[in-house]
Amino acid sequence: MVISVNPITKESHELPKKLDDSKNILDFLEKNKGKKVIVVQGLGFVGAVMSLVCANAITEEYAVIGIDQANQSSYWKIDSINNGIFPLVADDPKIDEFFERTKEKGNFYATYDSLAYQYADIIIVDINLDVEKSSNDDARLEDFSVNLDGFKLAIKSISNNCQDDVLILVETTVPPGTCEMVVKPIIEDELANRNLPTDKYKLGHSYERVMPGPDYIDSIREYPRVYSGISEESADAIECFLRTIIDTKSCNLTRLKHTNASEVAKVLENSYRAMNIAFAVEWSRYAEESGVDLYSIVNAIRVRKTHSNLMYPGIGVGGYCLTKDPLLASWSRKSFFGSKSDLSMSVNSVSINDQMPRYAFERLVQVFGKLRNKRVTFLGVSYRGDVGDTRFSPVELMVKMVKNAGSQIKLHDPFVSFWQERNCVVESELKKVLELNSDIIIISSGHSEYRSKTTIGLLMSINPLKIFDTIGLFDEDQLSTLRSRHQVSVLGRGDI
Amino acid sequence: MVISVNPITKESHELPKKLDDSKNILDFLEKNKGKKVIVVQGLGFVGAVMSLVCANAITEEYAVIGIDQANQSSYWKIDSINNGIFPLVADDPKIDEFFERTKEKGNFYATYDSLAYQYADIIIVDINLDVEKSSNDDARLEDFSVNLDGFKLAIKSISNNCQDDVLILVETTVPPGTCEMVVKPIIEDELANRNLPTDKYKLGHSYERVMPGPDYIDSIREYPRVYSGISEESADAIECFLRTIIDTKSCNLTRLKHTNASEVAKVLENSYRAMNIAFAVEWSRYAEESGVDLYSIVNAIRVRKTHSNLMYPGIGVGGYCLTKDPLLASWSRKSFFGSKSDLSMSVNSVSINDQMPRYAFERLVQVFGKLRNKRVTFLGVSYRGDVGDTRFSPVELMVKMVKNAGSQIKLHDPFVSFWQERNCVVESELKKVLELNSDIIIISSGHSEYRSKTTIGLLMSINPLKIFDTIGLFDEDQLSTLRSRHQVSVLGRGDI
Repeated sequence: MVISVNPITKESHELPKKLDDSKNILDFLEKNKGKKVIVVQGLGFVGAVMSLVCANAITEEYAVIGIDQANQSSYWKIDSINNGIFPLVADDPKIDEFFERTKEKGNFYATYDSLAYQYADIIIVDINLDVEKSSNDDARLEDFSVNLDGFKLAIKSISNNCQDDVLILVETTVPPGTCEMVVKPIIEDELANRNLPTDKYKLGHSYERVMPGPDYIDSIREYPRVYSGISEESADAIECFLRTIIDTKSCNLTRLKHTNASEVAKVLENSYRAMNIAFAVEWSRYAEESGVDLYSIVNAIRVRKTHSNLMYPGIGVGGYCLTKDPLLASWSRKSFFGSKSDLSMSVNSVSINDQMPRYAFERLVQVFGKLRNKRVTFLGVSYRGDVGDTRFSPVELMVKMVKNAGSQIKLHDPFVSFWQERNCVVESELKKVLELNSDIIIISSGHSEYRSKTTIGLLMSINPLKIFDTIGLFDEDQLSTLRSRHQVSVLGRGDI
Repeated sequence: MVISVNPITKESHELPKKLDDSKNILDFLEKNKGKKVIVVQGLGFVGAVMSLVCANAITEEYAVIGIDQANQSSYWKIDSINNGIFPLVADDPKIDEFFERTKEKGNFYATYDSLAYQYADIIIVDINLDVEKSSNDDARLEDFSVNLDGFKLAIKSISNNCQDDVLILVETTVPPGTCEMVVKPIIEDELANRNLPTDKYKLGHSYERVMPGPDYIDSIREYPRVYSGISEESADAIECFLRTIIDTKSCNLTRLKHTNASEVAKVLENSYRAMNIAFAVEWSRYAEESGVDLYSIVNAIRVRKTHSNLMYPGIGVGGYCLTKDPLLASWSRKSFFGSKSDLSMSVNSVSINDQMPRYAFERLVQVFGKLRNKRVTFLGVSYRGDVGDTRFSPVELMVKMVKNAGSQIKLHDPFVSFWQERNCVVESELKKVLELNSDIIIISSGHSEYRSKTTIGLLMSINPLKIFDTIGLFDEDQLSTLRSRHQVSVLGRGDI
């Protein structure tokens, strides 16, 4: 018996012995007769929510099938959905609301069976495409590689089954050039192998700007979108489809001329963001060295419109996108377009950002001394404020380093009860954690709870200790209150 | 007889044989009795205009003396001012207006004689502080150094003469740490040598955000400012002074806690800008390689507030600041604050930007073929649209490369009649230049004249040729008009 375990709830899901879900798929389609069928490939952070958005489309009634793999790491998502439990812990109330509605309507089903592609009018590709990085002991990026094998297999599984006039929308962040040079040839080869015409299918690329958190659903439905197709007809079809799920009254669709262009746009967006963060990282170190407060400097400069995107210091970059997308771009430049040059600004950004938790650790030791036998509490493990997403969270490396330095670690996060990547429980009651008599508290995620009046009150009632704020959470008043009782140091703020 | 020549008008100014201007200075002060005296050190692009702003202060009547050196390269400015001719070619009508007013009031005088410092209530340091760069044949930055000798001499010449309660405001862009570690010790040493108290003088730093062009004066008078002092009293004094010359109703003053902080702010601002341009440079090459149009991609992304500072492709960076300020910062980090690390993002930006004209040249050859015996016309030699400033203009390297490739060069610029750096005349009548039967026209500066109806009309009336737009000057309609007659290629726009 093979088991797939929900990493959050620890609930077990037994994998089916015979991988045939045809009966259920056909039942589902029968119940949804007359509706256009959308198959979403990949039930991760984007695919699962995209499925909900499609099943609750604005101007059309779709039957939506989500597909993922029947293996240990993914099957639990399929089984959860079909048992009425959404597989993501969501801070957005709309997620529950949308999921409940699909249950009422019975228009959302999940499966592992690629048979589903045979019935799809539209297939949306939302699988992961990862970058493998290797770093030195300082967390400096040394090398990286992009392996397209899994992605290619996923596209093959579509093209082995799909109808000849299907519309395929790639949402996965890919190395630019992928739709044209990878997806298109695979689809056309397989269609030809199946003796089907290769001029009827449609293919395009459009990227979401999804943001896990309280506006998860709206970050898909009400956010401007860029799209493209491999032909005018493909682009028209993508546009038609997007208009059914996106609230185009509140946000624009922008068509770009070629799939390369929208693929470039996606990785450029994230590379730009990663670069802005890396800039803050470098200047943050320099600010500490020269004794100045980078926060007040950034505030003074941001008044200029040309400088409004300047970012504050921080503990680093997390999440699935900014940590790898600049590398996808640089890889594409050399591997797909034969350039001898990489995108040095973008690659360097990733390397600098990867090192940020180490910088934060070093600053901690510099300011508060050795960590041997200290009791250290981290407030926040997710990579972003008010969000329970811990993928590639920079807190992870810092926790590891503080632990290796001989400290005892306690963790708190209001949005994370179990930290999947470190396989450990996280306390969610702040009072309990703060009463533990720590030596050092590290503010490691920007959750609003931490700067609330209640928290400041709690902090003022505990024994004096050292507070290391890695994200500039407190305003000047809060800082001076805290400093009347505790030693407080803020990352990116020098001492003069 | 030593002569100083105005590089624009070629007018000669004979240097005084005996360097004693005391009589004139005393006469000037006598005529301006009762007014506070401001001495502005340095009559370059900032100092000359800053002098005008001070002599036309908003809430105070100052007597202003501008000081520069009595040498071949600078003396003409002194003599010009005293002969009623402002030493900068200015597109801002307010420059003339303000200068005329100082003539009427008789409250602006220029000299070489450091005697002037003895009478100053306020001294403003506006001299240059340069970075020496060395590059390889590809224009890639190989090394750079900062030489503070000239700057230190200038500060010495102040402190050898100034009153013990003078207010000194450093506006020069300096390696952060300079006021504290260079200026302050020099002043205190010299005051002590002169047996004067060292606790009465005041010292601070504030940077202008001056922008040569049609809003030259307003870019000083009506633009938010950052300032700081070496003590609370110094900062107060700087603030008081700034309030007399800056229109604080329309813009804010921001006090930072330490001179290091406002010095960092200045170089950070310019490093950020240089980085944004370097980002566009790299992605511009990648866009061409992958066949996409970076302009439409940037437009699609700029709709996001977090990405509004994204820049368009271009021929490169010019001017006095962005080409060196990131290096000042990185130099300071290592030399003043003992860091082992440089500011790699910022240094790399300068290197990438320095190479941009070479990229543009290479793209030109790639698209339009070899340049041997071609007649090539450059539209624009200044580094910025609608401005006559050619300092470190990226057009310079490109002109050099096109010439070396065997082309005959013609130059046009409505704002530049003589190109100082290349020591050559520039045609200012567009019609004349366009009728010359060129093979290639390169749009090299973003002057509005070039995209006017008249110009498009002129371009449509000449023989078909090749147009290379390095700055994306034309909109889609203009491009398609031009393309009906000419071959047009735009830097950063691929071909698919």
